[in-house]
Amino acid sequence: MQLISGGVTAPKGFTAAGMHCGIRNNQSKKDLALLYSEVPCQAAAVYTQNKVYGAPITVTRTNIADGMAQAMICNSGNANTCNADGVEKAEKMCQLAADALGLQPTDIIVASTGVIGMTLDITPIAAGIPKLAPTLSKEGHADAVEAIMTTDTKPKEEAYTTTVGGKTVTIGAMAKGSGMIHPNMATMLGFLTTDCAITAPMLQKALKLAVDDTFNMVSVDGDTSTNDMVSIMANGLAENPIIDKEGADFDAFLAVVKEICTSMAKQIAGDGEGATKLVECHVTNAPSIPLAKAIAKSVITSNLTKAAMFGADANWGRILCAIGYTEGDFAVDTIAVTISSQKGSIDVCKNGAGVAFDEDKAKEILLQEEIHIDIDMQQGDAQATAWGCDLTYDYVKINGDYRT
Amino acid sequence: MQLISGGVTAPKGFTAAGMHCGIRNNQSKKDLALLYSEVPCQAAAVYTQNKVYGAPITVTRTNIADGMAQAMICNSGNANTCNADGVEKAEKMCQLAADALGLQPTDIIVASTGVIGMTLDITPIAAGIPKLAPTLSKEGHADAVEAIMTTDTKPKEEAYTTTVGGKTVTIGAMAKGSGMIHPNMATMLGFLTTDCAITAPMLQKALKLAVDDTFNMVSVDGDTSTNDMVSIMANGLAENPIIDKEGADFDAFLAVVKEICTSMAKQIAGDGEGATKLVECHVTNAPSIPLAKAIAKSVITSNLTKAAMFGADANWGRILCAIGYTEGDFAVDTIAVTISSQKGSIDVCKNGAGVAFDEDKAKEILLQEEIHIDIDMQQGDAQATAWGCDLTYDYVKINGDYRT
Repeated sequence: MQLISGGVTAPKGFTAAGMHCGIRNNQSKKDLALLYSEVPCQAAAVYTQNKVYGAPITVTRTNIADGMAQAMICNSGNANTCNADGVEKAEKMCQLAADALGLQPTDIIVASTGVIGMTLDITPIAAGIPKLAPTLSKEGHADAVEAIMTTDTKPKEEAYTTTVGGKTVTIGAMAKGSGMIHPNMATMLGFLTTDCAITAPMLQKALKLAVDDTFNMVSVDGDTSTNDMVSIMANGLAENPIIDKEGADFDAFLAVVKEICTSMAKQIAGDGEGATKLVECHVTNAPSIPLAKAIAKSVITSNLTKAAMFGADANWGRILCAIGYTEGDFAVDTIAVTISSQKGSIDVCKNGAGVAFDEDKAKEILLQEEIHIDIDMQQGDAQATAWGCDLTYDYVKINGDYRT
Repeated sequence: MQLISGGVTAPKGFTAAGMHCGIRNNQSKKDLALLYSEVPCQAAAVYTQNKVYGAPITVTRTNIADGMAQAMICNSGNANTCNADGVEKAEKMCQLAADALGLQPTDIIVASTGVIGMTLDITPIAAGIPKLAPTLSKEGHADAVEAIMTTDTKPKEEAYTTTVGGKTVTIGAMAKGSGMIHPNMATMLGFLTTDCAITAPMLQKALKLAVDDTFNMVSVDGDTSTNDMVSIMANGLAENPIIDKEGADFDAFLAVVKEICTSMAKQIAGDGEGATKLVECHVTNAPSIPLAKAIAKSVITSNLTKAAMFGADANWGRILCAIGYTEGDFAVDTIAVTISSQKGSIDVCKNGAGVAFDEDKAKEILLQEEIHIDIDMQQGDAQATAWGCDLTYDYVKINGDYRT
């Protein structure tokens, strides 16, 4: 597979657009994104597991129950969640997009991100969509990805090509974080597009497999959002033999889906609210994959470990502590921990106990922007990776008064 | 029952002392506490459920396996955890205390709190204990409670009297927080003393019942520490008929244990690292007690809710979000949320959706030092209360470079 430039419009047949329609007061912040395929797509999605979930989740679930979609509309600035008229408003967004694109409302994936529990004003969206649709273009991916951002500081998009059944298949993605992000399903918004020919069930399978190891292994703050989902639309324009079962073609497609989801996951973690660094925790030789995942997540979710990462403090006892309160049966007296970055690597713990290390070297390693925590459990052969970020003053600042 | 002045030395026969022995560099910070009963005590304790636990936990568990103890030694500044020679050092602390007091090492409860994974230097403790023991006194409770503090800003101690079997029984307690505090058993250090006559099994039962609803319902940062425990010593000097079964006497004793544990729990939550306010979450009409507890804990543990409390922002959507990701089966469309403080009360959510409220009034309410979040699930009759604090710049500051 190959990384190429672009995002969701890189695959054949997809166009996108983004604008400021007026949901947000800040006129320089785009707040409405539209994504469109010139032909109908097979569609799949995974959703938040929070029992409190947004109206757009309800509506999207219904709309793609038939495995089909052709466009996606997403606003930022308001989550349209915990509102008595939420479903009605989400359906209205689909109707407006369908009218502008000559589609049926059930062809639309709808998403919202922003404040929970504030009534969504449909007026700016109703006024915006008819202006937005005519601006759909190949270059529009950059505007679309900007429009889905909330407290994200960087747009997150990427595209890859790979070969499936002798044909070049392209996949694109855009995603947004960056608070209320915690592993428990599609912990943010991610929109994937591809021109691969694949059936909806296989598309759902590939997405689920990829998300479990990527988006679901990200935590910014331990809070699983009410609204987040990852969707994928596949329009088949690459003209590969349609993937309708497992095998070499499915594996090739799955590999590129995983690659792009991994990249989005790391970008989301590194751009967590207030974050100054990306923390990757890799657990090896664990008794089982679920336990390896749980331990990796526990470490990157620990506020104390996150604060230590912010302070570039090699306080590895907090890592051991976070491992120790992970639910499940495992031994702790075999655990080895290594901390590394581009500045080198140090062993800080062996057999569950501290080892002497050079504090200056540790500081140098931890002052980098990407930190790796490697945990060798030495009691099995399962492994897992999770991604998080540090806990900073800015996280508190951003979340101490988000609504103002 | 009646609140009286004093702490762990309020019950008959107990004396205490505290000093700076040199585990910490800061000479003005006491770091060694001793607590003594003039007669042997029935003893009970509950311990952290973290699989990584401190050597003092191992040693205390062994020492009070016979249900007896007569003294307690505790240092701050070093947790004596994840050290290869940890148990040996913890046993040495018991030996030193026993020698100074004319007891057996197995009569001693030992505890440590501070940095994990740093070898404990026994030298200052060995030099300190022989000086500390002769200073044991009724007034010593104030020095002892200071000596167990780490990042606590306030000493936490209290005493009550009640009547058991026609006799006045006194109970005293001291506790420390204030980071790495999360509900999963004895989430900090708490030392209780009483002159009540009670058997060790009934003492253990009372302590466990009280801790489950108090210390275990506190969270400062979601991190369950490796070292924390709550112990109780009962020396019987109140001369009440010994409590050896359930009944009116046990109930009277349990009530006062619960009262003092509740007070300690609230003091710990309110003095969480960097905290500016105490947040109490009361869940009512839930389907079951475990679920009521889980929901209450989920809300007070949510970083986003905690940051909103710091910002005095009535962002109740985050409360709904935290309720929603609690594991278990329950409906969300019946939930009502009320926020209150001494400045009044406002309903922010009914039937799972927002209701209009006065933002200025909400701000005024949330600017107080003790905030109550009342969640009416309207689907059962179980209730629970949890205590937490806000997430602040100072939490990040304290934990970003704790070791320096």
